[in-house]
Amino acid sequence: MNVAECDRGALHTITVHDFSARLSEQVIHFHVMRLDGGFLLWVGTSPTLSNLAVSMNSKFDAMPISMLLMGDQSETAPNALAQRLAKKTKKQVFVSYNLPVVNSNLALQVESRIKTEMENHPEHF
Amino acid sequence: MNVAECDRGALHTITVHDFSARLSEQVIHFHVMRLDGGFLLWVGTSPTLSNLAVSMNSKFDAMPISMLLMGDQSETAPNALAQRLAKKTKKQVFVSYNLPVVNSNLALQVESRIKTEMENHPEHF
Repeated sequence: MNVAECDRGALHTITVHDFSARLSEQVIHFHVMRLDGGFLLWVGTSPTLSNLAVSMNSKFDAMPISMLLMGDQSETAPNALAQRLAKKTKKQVFVSYNLPVVNSNLALQVESRIKTEMENHPEHF
Repeated sequence: MNVAECDRGALHTITVHDFSARLSEQVIHFHVMRLDGGFLLWVGTSPTLSNLAVSMNSKFDAMPISMLLMGDQSETAPNALAQRLAKKTKKQVFVSYNLPVVNSNLALQVESRIKTEMENHPEHF
């Protein structure tokens, strides 16, 4: 369910796209910045930047390579999400995942919500 | 001179703020995401994320510490800008600087434009 959607489309060369969803009884915010050949996705409930992962496809492996640029290396959620989105989109994907990692059900819902948004608004990814 | 300004204010917990300026005959876009205890600033003319620096104040030195998380380590512009903004705001500052580094005059104009925006819209930083 969409709680709020605010979008500026192609007003600038630089396009950003925000949407929110109520998942597991909390409002999760999504913030997408489209880049050349990829996008940056921020997911969270409060304004923090606790990690940043990047993933991209390589010709050496079917699975995209992935790297945590910042944050707790024992948290696999940002890398895993970036990797799956890179695989799906064939693009370079930056992900900052600012949600409790204990809730793996929430992570699945978040990923599902992102994929829905990608289907409905492919121009923003 | 402002070319365009689009702002969603405090619609979500997550606030982002965009503005643009014509500096050295080109339109430069600025994108600010406010975080707890700091902010992320993206500066550029085209949608790339070529580097990311982070800077924060420490009690050990008057100059904030600064680190390049991603990008060409020989480019000092992202670190320098993050450091000066961290010093000015006393906050943790992330900077992605996507402009040609050969133009140091442009870098000064960019920094000046950011400071003007900080004075006019302190709530977004």
